[in-house]
Amino acid sequence: MNSQLKQPKIKRLTIIGVGLIGGSFARAVRASGLVGHITGCGRNAKNLIKAIELGVIDDFFLDINQAVENADIIFIATPVGSFKSILSQVKNSMKVDAVITDAGSTKSSVIEAAKTVFDEVPANFVPGHPIAGTENSGVEASFVELYQNHRVILTPLEKTNSSAIELVSDLWKSAGAQVVLMEAGHHDLVLAATSHLPHLLAFSLVDTLTTLDEKQEIFENAAGGFRDFTRIASSDPSMWQDICLANKKALIEHLDHFTQDLQQLRTALDEDNGDYLKQVFTRAKQSRDDFC
Amino acid sequence: MNSQLKQPKIKRLTIIGVGLIGGSFARAVRASGLVGHITGCGRNAKNLIKAIELGVIDDFFLDINQAVENADIIFIATPVGSFKSILSQVKNSMKVDAVITDAGSTKSSVIEAAKTVFDEVPANFVPGHPIAGTENSGVEASFVELYQNHRVILTPLEKTNSSAIELVSDLWKSAGAQVVLMEAGHHDLVLAATSHLPHLLAFSLVDTLTTLDEKQEIFENAAGGFRDFTRIASSDPSMWQDICLANKKALIEHLDHFTQDLQQLRTALDEDNGDYLKQVFTRAKQSRDDFC
Repeated sequence: MNSQLKQPKIKRLTIIGVGLIGGSFARAVRASGLVGHITGCGRNAKNLIKAIELGVIDDFFLDINQAVENADIIFIATPVGSFKSILSQVKNSMKVDAVITDAGSTKSSVIEAAKTVFDEVPANFVPGHPIAGTENSGVEASFVELYQNHRVILTPLEKTNSSAIELVSDLWKSAGAQVVLMEAGHHDLVLAATSHLPHLLAFSLVDTLTTLDEKQEIFENAAGGFRDFTRIASSDPSMWQDICLANKKALIEHLDHFTQDLQQLRTALDEDNGDYLKQVFTRAKQSRDDFC
Repeated sequence: MNSQLKQPKIKRLTIIGVGLIGGSFARAVRASGLVGHITGCGRNAKNLIKAIELGVIDDFFLDINQAVENADIIFIATPVGSFKSILSQVKNSMKVDAVITDAGSTKSSVIEAAKTVFDEVPANFVPGHPIAGTENSGVEASFVELYQNHRVILTPLEKTNSSAIELVSDLWKSAGAQVVLMEAGHHDLVLAATSHLPHLLAFSLVDTLTTLDEKQEIFENAAGGFRDFTRIASSDPSMWQDICLANKKALIEHLDHFTQDLQQLRTALDEDNGDYLKQVFTRAKQSRDDFC
């Protein structure tokens, strides 16, 4: 084998957090041939050993400093609440020209963390968020096609190096994703509506029903509609605690708007105002049918 | 063919409302061999012609009086708001010993309608509700396996004939369903929690998002979680207007409980109370994983 014949574009990639998101990214970029060596990093040695067994990563370190010191690109795929601590360690040991990117579900909070740690956001840091996932977690839930035909939103700043943006875009494209650029605050507002609020509502509804006397019967008599509606309530609680807090301003804004509208539906119900109900339901069905 | 060798248990079944629910029932009981002739009835001749073409029914009448006059069993599968009018017509023409059953999503309102029309609920009326469906409607959406391994809740009254309950149960069992008996008011409370409230929330959320400036981007950046969460917002608006109004007492009760709990989550968010969020999310995930 002559490795000089087909040199991968990126020699060494380090993935911090080798779960569903990080693991699927590793599988996809390895399959693309763009990356040479993949190092994993995390707190759970068992998960990382599994990741090696599955061929997702080549080696791993539990220590972030060791994991990133030779990396050309560092991909952070951990809950957003951990970013300040992780970036502090990355800063100590990373190569000066390494590119950093991430898969955090909120972007303003991640940029804020980078600002705090580095004084100003590094020009080689490209904040990102793949709009893909399942309710499962851990490297065993990862799969090579996760990002195919899904969007990845990058939220670079004005001073972000265009070469870094290009490199990160190329990686995502090689994983089959469609790359979209967006301002971080705008990303957070859009995602609060389309992802964070639905998760909050699903968790909240299932918890409310869990406290009822009829709990057992309620779940036993649930049909497919309920199963789909509550699927996201099986998501990882720690991760969602982080996301909700990190994006609380936008989330509360949408939540208040939703609660107001819901109260109007309650009034209509109470007053037997069928026309109002039908109007709302019809508009909702129309939107949902148009877009999904 | 010697029809005397294998006489079907029920000679003539009339289905009022040959859509997803009525059509799937017709397909399933016909496949079981329990029913001889199936007559359809509805307001939409095109749908009924389609139902004949698909082999779902044998013939049809647009007029309820004609449709039921020879029926041994009458199955009503129309939106619950139509029951009073339909039962009045059924009463005029039905055979005195015909069994009536239905698939209405609310049971107290249906029993109330029967009481109003017949003065007292007929002993041969067996209120029922299959816990199955999809967001699609019309006879073309119907399929023979819809009820397989799904529950059907029957809510007979004290005076309901046990032979009528048995006949209706046999039909549902022949369609692959599991028959459960329940008191009507209890059914309505359980279903308000597990079906009616989730539908109201899904319709309401999609409608709220539809009114936002970022509407286009919100839907474009929605992932699979959002798609599943809002699937039931594609359901038929008229049908759900009826259901919500017919079961408004139980629905408002659950809605108020839910709204209270949601406000506590809002407070926790506002106060950065991550422990509270995590506690709720963890309890919800546990319930959801246990039951689904």
